[in-house]
Amino acid sequence: MTMKFTFLGTGSVKAAPVYGCDCPVCQRALANTDYRRHPACGVLEVNGMRLLIDAGYLNLEQKFPPGSLDAVLLTHFHMDHVQGLFPMRWGMGKTIPVFSPDDPAGCDDLFKYPGIFDFSQKTQPFETFVFQGLSITPVPLVHSKLTMGYVFELDGKRLAYLCDSGTLRRDVETYLQTHSIDLMILDCDQPPLENAPRNHNDLTRALQIFDQVKPSQLVLTHISHNLDDYFMRHPDCLPENLHIGYDNQTWSI
Amino acid sequence: MTMKFTFLGTGSVKAAPVYGCDCPVCQRALANTDYRRHPACGVLEVNGMRLLIDAGYLNLEQKFPPGSLDAVLLTHFHMDHVQGLFPMRWGMGKTIPVFSPDDPAGCDDLFKYPGIFDFSQKTQPFETFVFQGLSITPVPLVHSKLTMGYVFELDGKRLAYLCDSGTLRRDVETYLQTHSIDLMILDCDQPPLENAPRNHNDLTRALQIFDQVKPSQLVLTHISHNLDDYFMRHPDCLPENLHIGYDNQTWSI
Repeated sequence: MTMKFTFLGTGSVKAAPVYGCDCPVCQRALANTDYRRHPACGVLEVNGMRLLIDAGYLNLEQKFPPGSLDAVLLTHFHMDHVQGLFPMRWGMGKTIPVFSPDDPAGCDDLFKYPGIFDFSQKTQPFETFVFQGLSITPVPLVHSKLTMGYVFELDGKRLAYLCDSGTLRRDVETYLQTHSIDLMILDCDQPPLENAPRNHNDLTRALQIFDQVKPSQLVLTHISHNLDDYFMRHPDCLPENLHIGYDNQTWSI
Repeated sequence: MTMKFTFLGTGSVKAAPVYGCDCPVCQRALANTDYRRHPACGVLEVNGMRLLIDAGYLNLEQKFPPGSLDAVLLTHFHMDHVQGLFPMRWGMGKTIPVFSPDDPAGCDDLFKYPGIFDFSQKTQPFETFVFQGLSITPVPLVHSKLTMGYVFELDGKRLAYLCDSGTLRRDVETYLQTHSIDLMILDCDQPPLENAPRNHNDLTRALQIFDQVKPSQLVLTHISHNLDDYFMRHPDCLPENLHIGYDNQTWSI
């Protein structure tokens, strides 16, 4: 069996095009929808099961006809990672389980009016759980809200989704080093900066993590227009097996 | 000069089609986009000035190219009335003033990260203010959050936008009766019910308000699939000068 991951979004909180921005990246995204970046999220498909990872994509109902989504897995409750749930919650039909970090604040009134979503499944650091045959291990990330990355394991293959995240905690780095990762999807919000941000990675730190963890493949997500601008000007800056993520791109392992 | 009001949305919080709903109303809305209802909101245009009234429409950037929106006027901070601001706030360019009730909670982190929006303009009951030549009088509504309706006046003509709202307060009813209203846009969420809801109108109460205030024209908005179902089964139930609102419909006075 394969794990098939498809990006619904690979953008930073500002996504692309940034409203009102005249930069070449945003003008390119306006002109060619292939270059648009929705808020970072994706769908993992395993043996007919569909798991939405984060929900910042605004028009989820267009991607997921009723009954086609088995569960939602949230990294954290920032608006650009959950905003798609607000309109969808008022739907009808079977309840959709949501796995999320144990953040009692949630986002606005999601917990008060969950609608078709069931937010009772809380993910805990390093407490592996199984959903429809898929093993999922939450790994705590460094961010401005309680945030969890996830390592998915199936038939001895591992996919790590680490977003939103600044530098990796030591215990998470060790976990990833000792559990060989076939495909890592990593937050990289900014081009190389003098001072790397606390809540996201710049490209320098993403390259360090690639070197330290040594996944077979690494794909960058949560990409800002600043980083895309850097890639436009440095088209060959990435080493082998390190890739720029794009919306609608699929990776299978 | 005329006031030109266009509905961007005329739907209840569930909008239409309701995700996963098989009812004739939702199936019609799925098949024919003319019958879709986005969350209740609209745009008022006066002499080239564009004022967005509520912001529950998800893809505002598609309706308003950069620079085309002069201000936002909010009735209240429920998600289905503000969710379009979250992605747009990260834009660039000139600040867009937002007029809103003085609700310190706002919605999620909108006040913490306002981006291109300026939320400093607070509307107070019956305290008329003028924006680009347009006179605006806030009228307090009965709802589960601090909510304001607005009466717009231009060249002796008046347009009242009253949503979300249950029964009218006595002082608001008196104000509307003594300031002849040419066009009233009114929350009507439900078909006639045994017990009218507290936070919205059912059709029975909307008809009472029409009788009591006597606007020249009244248009219903915040319409649920339940009410649309009633209209399908009772096509001639509305008196003269009382109309069903539809998305993209324009009214000029």
